[in-house]
Parts: sequence; C-alpha cells; structure tokens
Amino acid sequence: MPEKPVVAVIMGSQNDYEKVEPGISLLRDFGVSTQVRILSAHRTPDEVKRFVQQGEKQGIKVFICAAGMAAHLAGVVASHTTRPVIGIPISSGALNGIDSLYSTVMMPPGIPVATVAINGSQNAAYLALEIIQDSFPEVAQKLKDQRKKMVKKVLEADKAIQK
Amino acid sequence: MPEKPVVAVIMGSQNDYEKVEPGISLLRDFGVSTQVRILSAHRTPDEVKRFVQQGEKQGIKVFICAAGMAAHLAGVVASHTTRPVIGIPISSGALNGIDSLYSTVMMPPGIPVATVAINGSQNAAYLALEIIQDSFPEVAQKLKDQRKKMVKKVLEADKAIQK
Amino acid sequence: MPEKPVVAVIMGSQNDYEKVEPGISLLRDFGVSTQVRILSAHRTPDEVKRFVQQGEKQGIKVFICAAGMAAHLAGVVASHTTRPVIGIPISSGALNGIDSLYSTVMMPPGIPVATVAINGSQNAAYLALEIIQDSFPEVAQKLKDQRKKMVKKVLEADKAIQK
Amino acid sequence: MPEKPVVAVIMGSQNDYEKVEPGISLLRDFGVSTQVRILSAHRTPDEVKRFVQQGEKQGIKVFICAAGMAAHLAGVVASHTTRPVIGIPISSGALNGIDSLYSTVMMPPGIPVATVAINGSQNAAYLALEIIQDSFPEVAQKLKDQRKKMVKKVLEADKAIQK
Amino acid sequence: MPEKPVVAVIMGSQNDYEKVEPGISLLRDFGVSTQVRILSAHRTPDEVKRFVQQGEKQGIKVFICAAGMAAHLAGVVASHTTRPVIGIPISSGALNGIDSLYSTVMMPPGIPVATVAINGSQNAAYLALEIIQDSFPEVAQKLKDQRKKMVKKVLEADKAIQK
Amino acid sequence: MPEKPVVAVIMGSQNDYEKVEPGISLLRDFGVSTQVRILSAHRTPDEVKRFVQQGEKQGIKVFICAAGMAAHLAGVVASHTTRPVIGIPISSGALNGIDSLYSTVMMPPGIPVATVAINGSQNAAYLALEIIQDSFPEVAQKLKDQRKKMVKKVLEADKAIQK
Amino acid sequence: MPEKPVVAVIMGSQNDYEKVEPGISLLRDFGVSTQVRILSAHRTPDEVKRFVQQGEKQGIKVFICAAGMAAHLAGVVASHTTRPVIGIPISSGALNGIDSLYSTVMMPPGIPVATVAINGSQNAAYLALEIIQDSFPEVAQKLKDQRKKMVKKVLEADKAIQK
Amino acid sequence: MPEKPVVAVIMGSQNDYEKVEPGISLLRDFGVSTQVRILSAHRTPDEVKRFVQQGEKQGIKVFICAAGMAAHLAGVVASHTTRPVIGIPISSGALNGIDSLYSTVMMPPGIPVATVAINGSQNAAYLALEIIQDSFPEVAQKLKDQRKKMVKKVLEADKAIQK
Repeated sequence: MPEKPVVAVIMGSQNDYEKVEPGISLLRDFGVSTQVRILSAHRTPDEVKRFVQQGEKQGIKVFICAAGMAAHLAGVVASHTTRPVIGIPISSGALNGIDSLYSTVMMPPGIPVATVAINGSQNAAYLALEIIQDSFPEVAQKLKDQRKKMVKKVLEADKAIQK
Repeated sequence: MPEKPVVAVIMGSQNDYEKVEPGISLLRDFGVSTQVRILSAHRTPDEVKRFVQQGEKQGIKVFICAAGMAAHLAGVVASHTTRPVIGIPISSGALNGIDSLYSTVMMPPGIPVATVAINGSQNAAYLALEIIQDSFPEVAQKLKDQRKKMVKKVLEADKAIQK
Repeated sequence: MPEKPVVAVIMGSQNDYEKVEPGISLLRDFGVSTQVRILSAHRTPDEVKRFVQQGEKQGIKVFICAAGMAAHLAGVVASHTTRPVIGIPISSGALNGIDSLYSTVMMPPGIPVATVAINGSQNAAYLALEIIQDSFPEVAQKLKDQRKKMVKKVLEADKAIQK
Repeated sequence: MPEKPVVAVIMGSQNDYEKVEPGISLLRDFGVSTQVRILSAHRTPDEVKRFVQQGEKQGIKVFICAAGMAAHLAGVVASHTTRPVIGIPISSGALNGIDSLYSTVMMPPGIPVATVAINGSQNAAYLALEIIQDSFPEVAQKLKDQRKKMVKKVLEADKAIQK
Repeated sequence: MPEKPVVAVIMGSQNDYEKVEPGISLLRDFGVSTQVRILSAHRTPDEVKRFVQQGEKQGIKVFICAAGMAAHLAGVVASHTTRPVIGIPISSGALNGIDSLYSTVMMPPGIPVATVAINGSQNAAYLALEIIQDSFPEVAQKLKDQRKKMVKKVLEADKAIQK
Repeated sequence: MPEKPVVAVIMGSQNDYEKVEPGISLLRDFGVSTQVRILSAHRTPDEVKRFVQQGEKQGIKVFICAAGMAAHLAGVVASHTTRPVIGIPISSGALNGIDSLYSTVMMPPGIPVATVAINGSQNAAYLALEIIQDSFPEVAQKLKDQRKKMVKKVLEADKAIQK
Repeated sequence: MPEKPVVAVIMGSQNDYEKVEPGISLLRDFGVSTQVRILSAHRTPDEVKRFVQQGEKQGIKVFICAAGMAAHLAGVVASHTTRPVIGIPISSGALNGIDSLYSTVMMPPGIPVATVAINGSQNAAYLALEIIQDSFPEVAQKLKDQRKKMVKKVLEADKAIQK
Repeated sequence: MPEKPVVAVIMGSQNDYEKVEPGISLLRDFGVSTQVRILSAHRTPDEVKRFVQQGEKQGIKVFICAAGMAAHLAGVVASHTTRPVIGIPISSGALNGIDSLYSTVMMPPGIPVATVAINGSQNAAYLALEIIQDSFPEVAQKLKDQRKKMVKKVLEADKAIQK
C-alpha cells in the first residue's frame, strides 16, 4: 500500500473527534494511510475546496466527512469531486443527530453522499475499505478475515451466555 | 430606491420557483429591485461563491435562499458573506420539508441563517424588507401600512363570518 | 455607537438565561448596547407589548426572543413591531426543543420571525449584528474580522490534529 | 339557555372555517349560543385582547381557538383570561398539524390550554359542553343522550357488518 | 367549598407520582378537596369504571388523568363519564412522552380529553380550577389573584436581570 | 376446523373496514371461522368488555383489533383477556398512523399487544394463523404452502424483469 | 412442561442483555424452558438460519428477538420460520429506539413480526406465554393468576397513596 | 467495459420499479452492464444469499438495493458480501419512507450500507459509478463530463429566469 494518503477523514469541528476516532483507528489497523483534517464547510469553505481538489489529484480515493447539526460538510466536499464521499452524521445539539442525518443523506440528484448511521464512523471506515479493495487487494483479503473475526466474536458471546 | 438590485433571491432548482414566487412578487410590490437567480450549492458551488461575493460588493443587502431536501444553499451562501442570509426550506421529496428545515435552521455558531417557515417565501420577503428599512425609509413606512392592511383584511373576514 | 440600547434580548423565563448568555456576551464584545429583559408572552402580555412599542420608538433596531416549549414569545413580539425579530427556540421540557422550533419558525405569512438553531443564541447575536451593520459601520468591519478569526481557529485545530 | 353568547369560537384565518364548522354545528345543535370570530393572534393582537376581555365580562364561559402552523392563538387568548380555553390545532402547511399541535399543547405552567386532536373541532365542542353543563343543566342531559346515540350508532354499524 | 372531593387525580402508576405532585399541591393550595388515586386502565379496568361512575355521582366535577407510554387512562375514563376529563401525558420510556401525548390528545370525535403539556400537571390543575370556578366563586377570585402573582414574579426576575 | 369463530376481528369504526378487509379475506381463505365486529373502545366500552369475555369463553383464540388515531382498542381488549391480542394501527387523520402505532405498541408491562405495521391487516391475519396452528394442524401446513407461493410469486416477478 | 426449550430468546448483541433479562426471568418464573442466544442477523446470518430451522424442528414454539438500531433480527428470523416471531425493539444509539421500532414493526405483507414496546421484554414474554398456553394449560392458569396479582399490586399502591 | 454485469440492482418488490428505474437508466447510459433483480429479503432469503455470493464471484462490484417499509434488503445483502452495498430507502406505506430510511442507514458496526436519499435511485447509480471508476477509467471521465453538463443545465435555467 502507498505511503501517501489514500483515504481522507474530514471533521467539521474538533468536538467531533471522539466520535470519529474509532473509524480512523480501523483504517490504520488495516494499514491504510489516512489523512485526518478539521475543516468547516461554513467557516473555511475555500480551504475545503482546495483540500478536496488537491487531495483528489494526489491520490485520495475516498473522502469521509463527519459533521453535526445542519451537516453540510459531506455535501460540500461532494460538490468538488467525483470521488466517493462518505458522510457520518454526528449527534450534537438538541436534535441529537436527526438534523445531521437528514442534512447528509437527503442529497439532490447528481451529487451523491454515501451515508452511514449517526456516529457510525466504523462503518464509514469499512465502506471506504470496501471501495478501495480493488486497488489494494490486501484490503480485500483483510475485509474477509475481519468478517470471520466478527462471526467468531458473536459465537463466543453466544457460548458464554448459554452457560 | 436604487435601480440596481438590493435583494437577491437564489433558488436551488427551477422546480422551487412556484413556491418562491409569492416572495418575489412582494418585494417587487414594495418597489425593491430584486435579482432572481437559480444556482445550486452542489452543482454550481463556484458560481454561487462568485455571485455572492460580487453581489455583496455591488450592493446586495440581503440574500434570500430557497432549497429543498438537504438544503445547503443558504448555509453555503452565508459562508461567503457577512450580509444577512434568509433561508426558505422548500417542501420537496418524501420528507416534505422537515429535511430542508433542519438543514437550513440548525446552523453551527458563527454562520447564521435567518430561517422562515417551510415554503414561507412571503415571510422571507417581509424579513428582508424589515432588514433594509433603515437604508430605505420608504420601505419602513410601507411595512407599517401593510400591517394595517392585514388588520383590515382580518377584520373584514371577521365581519363577513358574523353575518 | 450609541449608549442607548440598539438590540433587545428578551427571554421567556429566568431558566433560559444560561442558554442565552453566549449571545448576550457576543453582542457586548462587539460593543453593542444591549437591553436584556425577562418577559413572558403568556404571563405578562401587556408588558411585552409596552416594551416592544416603546423600545422601537427609543431606538431598538432588532429584537431577539428566546423561549421554550410552545414558544410564542418571538411571534407575539413580532405582532407588535415591524423591526426584525429573531427567535431562539430553547430546549426545555420533554420534547427537547422541537416544540419551540416549530412554534417559532412556522409563522404564518405577514409576521416573520428570523429563526436560528435550537439554543443558537450566538447565531442570533451574529444575525442581529449583520442586520445593524449598515447603521453602525464599525460592526460591519468587526464581523469581517471575526470571520477571519474563525478561519484561523479552525486552521489551528486542523494543524494540531495533523501532528 | 341565554340568548347572548356562552361559547366563543375564534379561528386564526378564514381558511380554517371548513375544519372548525363541525364543532360550531354541534354547539348550535345543543342550543348553545355561540359567537364565531376570525381573529389573528399575530395580525390583530389588540382586537384579540379586546374581544377576550369584553367577552369574559359579557358572559362567554369558554373560548375555543383554532389555528394552524405556529398556532399561538389559543395561548394568546389564554394569556388574557382565566376562563377555560380550548385549543384546536389545525393541519395546514407542510408539517400537517404537528407544528400546531406542539404550539398549542406545550404551554408553560400557569397558562393552560385544553388541547384536542388535530382538526378535532367536534371534541372541542363536546369539551365546551361538558364544561358549561353545571351552569346549564339541559346541556348535561343532552350530553348523556348524545352518548347513548353514539352507542346506538356503533351497534347498528356492528350489526350491519355481521350480516 | 365542600369537604367531599371535587377533583379526582388518577395516575396510571406509582412512578408517575413525582411528576403529578405539583398539580395536586396546587389544587390543595386553592383549597379544593382532591381525591388522588392510582388506577391502571389496563390492569384494573373494572376499578377505573367503578371509581369514575361512583365519583361522578358523589360530586367529582373534573377528572385529571396522568399516564405514560400508550397512555389510555384519560380516554378510558372519558368513555365512562360526560364530566370534563383532563389528560396529562407523562414522559417515561424510550419515546419520552411523544407516545403518551399522541395517545392522549388524538381522541376520536365524541369522547374528548382536554390535553395539557407532557408532564404538565400544574396546568392540568389550573384548567380544573378554571372549569370549577362557576360552581365555586372563591376559586374564580383566586385564579385572578394567582395571575397577578405570576406577573409580579416575572417582573421581579426581569428587574433582577437588568441590574 | 370448528364452525364457531376462532379468530375475532374488531375494528373501532366502519371507516376502517377497507384497510382491514385484506386480513379478513386471508383468514377466510385459510378456512378459519372469523367473527367481524365494529366496537369502539371509547363509545361502547361495556360492549367491548362483554364481547371479549364471552368470546374467550366461546372459543375465540386470538383477537385482532384495528383502530386509528389514539388507538386504545387493542389495549382495552387486552385488559379483558389473557388470549393473544393483535393490534393493527390504522392510518387516519392528520398524523397518518404514527399516533395509532404509538398508542398500540407502547403498552406498559403486563398487558401485551402484538403490534403489526400501520394498516398491516394481512400480517395480523398471518400472525393469528401462526398462533392457532398448534390447535389446527391444517393451518400449519397451509402456512408453509403459502410461504412457497410467496417465493414463487417473487421469482416469477424476478424472471419477468430480467427479460 | 417439557424440559427441552419451548421459547427461544435471541438478542443481536451482548449489550442488549440487560434490557432483555426481565423477559427471560419472567419466562423462567412461569417454568417455561427458554433457550437464550446471542446471534446477529448481519454478522452471523447463516447461524441464525440454522438455529431457527433446527429450533423449529426441535420444538421451539415462539421466537423472541431483541435488537437495536436497524433491527433486522426479528424479520430475518421470521423469514426462516412460520412459528410466531415476537420483536423487541431495543433503544441504543442516537435515535433511542425509534429506528429499531420502525425496522421491527413495519414488515411487508407475508412475514409478520409481533412487535412490543421499545425495550418491552416483559410483554414479549407475556405474549409468548399467551401464545403457548393452549399447548401448556398450566401456563393459561398462571397467566390468569398473574393478572390478579397485578390488580392486587395496583390496588395496594392505590391504598397507600390515599393515606 | 465488460459485457457481464458489473453492478447489480435488486429491489424488494415489483412495486418499487418505477422509483428505481431512473438509476437503472443512468447506469445504462454510462454503458455499465447492470443486472436487475427482484428479490425479497423476507420472502426469498435463500435466493438473495445465493445471488449475492455468486454475483460477487462472477464480477459484480457493487450491489444497489431498494426496499420500502422495514427495509432489510440492503442489510441482508451486506451480510453476505464485502463488496460495497448501496441502499435506497423507498417511500411506500403510511410512514412515507422514514421507516425505510432508518432501517437502511442505522446499520450496526461491521456491516456498512451506503445509504442515499429516500427514492434516490439516481444518486445510488452515481455512487456506484464513482466506486467502479478506478476499474473502468472511461467511467471516471464520463463522471466529470456529467458534472459539467449539470453545471451547464443549471446555468441555462439561471439565464432563463433572469429574462
């Protein structure tokens, strides 16, 4: 796998870090070089555009975007690239993530955002891995191994409860 | 009042026109020069930025933005200007406007959008008029007159029903 | 800037103070003379009317209203003035602010309320500042400076996370 | 029963008439003198106050208020009287009555509104009749008779379907 | 005022007591003899029926019913009486009171329930007092006095915050 | 299979018939003697109780209850029997079935209602058939046959679309 | 009653155990042999299928399935059997159980899931007991006894509060 | 591009075809060989598994799944493959797609579904195209061309409205 970043994880605010961290860890566990950025669709729109356009040229294959409330980050990123963009709605504020879910998933035709569950950073990472697996066959194999580990973990819990 | 545009009305799609038209009419009834644009936050982000920055320089005092679904237009416009931005959530698609309401109103601190009711283009226009009234005193007077007309209209309906 | 109040912040109950305070601080940081009141649309309707009508005459340019549950305060204030009224829905009670959001934003045609996010007192303040900037040019400049500070703050957090 | 009005039915707009009419008919079927008004909490706040305060003095025992969207009418009426106020949330606009339900029922402590179902004008009338029955014993008897008629009607439909 | 109960407060479960208590206190502060019962629409339907029918005969003028989740208590009570029934939706369980609000307020035509806010026991009590005031004139006077106290309390808080 | 009714289908109102009919047809297609009643939890509570208690004695094994709005019917039926009660929330009125879903499914501990989808009368019937299959083995076999028919129907549609 | 399992309780994750435990206890209090499993519809789909098909052959009469978020477990189990399947939506994650309620109850025609309240494991158990009572008459009697205990418990609480 | 299918579009029911068709057309316009299937997660679980596992072996790179109500199809498909799965929630039934949105997007960690807007079949297709572009460079170029066409279309509408 290349040393330069393959996946970018952008979050709208420092406060989102804790909820996004499990996804970042997963990507790194898979050995995928991941660039982590804090960029705000509303406060730093120009920086977002620059990063996305440069990133695409420099080999970023998937953009993961996490934001809360009126979560426009994933949509704004998607407006600047034709690479797959994955949106993680973050629960923050009084509406607890319903607002960010709707703001992320209800995109109009033409500019898709692949949305995962509220705070679903792990699945955002898994989805990114599934998307890049054709370019990096070692990822494909690791995904299959990981599934087997999941099965094993469930079956162990299942055994434990039956005692 | 100046001939060059004072208020801009931007809608995200041609389909929103019917719901935005009452607000445009109202602004014109008040004699306010109004520029109407169709610009998409997602499909034409660069054009949006250019228009907002130029518009601000050329004297646009208020931006009214109407969009449906994951309605990012008002937020994106607000990210490019410190002029007041008014957002009209449009009901379109399966969620009937709840999605656009949340996407428009739940803005994070620093980049405000003055949100009106779903499809509330008239109130968006009234709000714009209230905002520009200090610069254009004739608007201030007309707003007061309009309120009196509203009272009269209600009282007439009230009289009619009592018969 | 004048010493007499330019912006009024009305809250429906003492309990809302903590959530409204960040907005009040921001207005004062901008050097805007701000009058803070506790007035209830339902318990003190006459006092609300008197304050709004007098306030308008004495130079209040924008009314900010914060209320929870069936939040009628902003609408009632708007019914007594043609100055811009900004509504802050407050999360309180079992519905956590959805009730106050709907009660504030879904105003019928003719009486607009510029609604911000639930508990969004900072954006209410920013919006008020954007509205009064034509009358007080120093505010216009400070708004632009503040945006730059926001950009800087995001970029610093961005740098920090990349280490 | 007195000839002067005992129950007042206020609606916020002419458009609500069709949904309120079944309740008005019911009150009249019961022989209760009913005053029907169109008054807007936002457009005619002074007229609302005047009517409620005079009405109370002239013998109105119950106020029924019907309004849609950010339905403040019942709350505003309740703020001017200690007579029972019944609120009918009307479905109108994109949120189809959820907004008016929350705006009507979620009143803060001290100013109650007796809320019925969305568009529930018949139950508003029944509730008013139940409230005034101590003052007008013929109403008490008619309410009991009406219940028996309801039972009969259900049982007839029940018989019909069993064939 | 009579010594025998005039208002009945029924709650569906012991757990609701804390949320209902402020309403009970208020009724007692007004000197209204109040009967408090724990009766479940689902577990003790026969006891509910017996109590309502006997209560009505023995002079209960208003029934206040508090219940959570699929809150059928107020509706079931209303099915056994033509006295006014007030429903308090209680927040309990995962839906936090939305379920009990809908179950209480959306009654079909013919059997009204006067619904107050989620956990709104104080307003249930105020509403009961407003309903019984024609039978007990001292209540009518106290209600007016109480409103004045509310005004005073708000104005004191208002004064305090202006310092 | 016995000639006397094994399943009872109760609906709260004649208006629900069209939405309940598919379930009734299905039961009859399976050769299950089905008693169809119109009984209202609120208008005819005594008749509901009588029917349920007698029905249970006379061999009704499952009660299916369909009701809209504040749908208390299934809960009230369940309060009078320990036979399985299936609730069908009916969409009617402004909330389109969310109210009846919550009123039916969110039952407190002790009195269960087996809830199916809004307007899900077919699944109510299937569930009743699954419940009675141990008493009537021909039903068990027919259920398995029906599943095979479903598979076949899907596969036929699948074939058709591939052409 | 047989020693081999009659009811199966499957939960999608170890984390659901605490919310499911009251239902398991109840089944065991009734002397019903209950098999408890942890199996995930998404992580161990083959194991779910195998268990359901074998379980049905070995005498499982009712399957109770508890899962959170996009709760597919009950639906997947129901797709493999014509025995009654009871679904318990578990509150977990940002949507607090609304997601699991909709995912469990809104099943398409043909594959029913008997849904109980969010976290309603006790009612799931009661429903299972009601379903198996025809095969195990001692359960039928215990259900009636349990109802009497419930009545007694409510009446005791009722007495206590009246003092 | 290969002649054998690269993208599979599975819908849960024939009734979903009309809402899924725009996405299928788009894929074919891009020259991508697309296999369209009707398969039900609940009625034909074995066929779903077989198709997904064989499809993956035979070169399907992305699975698009469209389903309504308790939409388990995408989740079930995802449980059988580590290829990217895209879910389209379909609006059908009383909840109008909220149910299918939650059932599709709120997947637990480990089994991701890339969710698009309710009825968003076009964006599902765009997302699939973005995902396969690394394997088929002609797709990458066409995606960029398509974006330019979108811009052009918006700007044309924008010009038209300014006249």
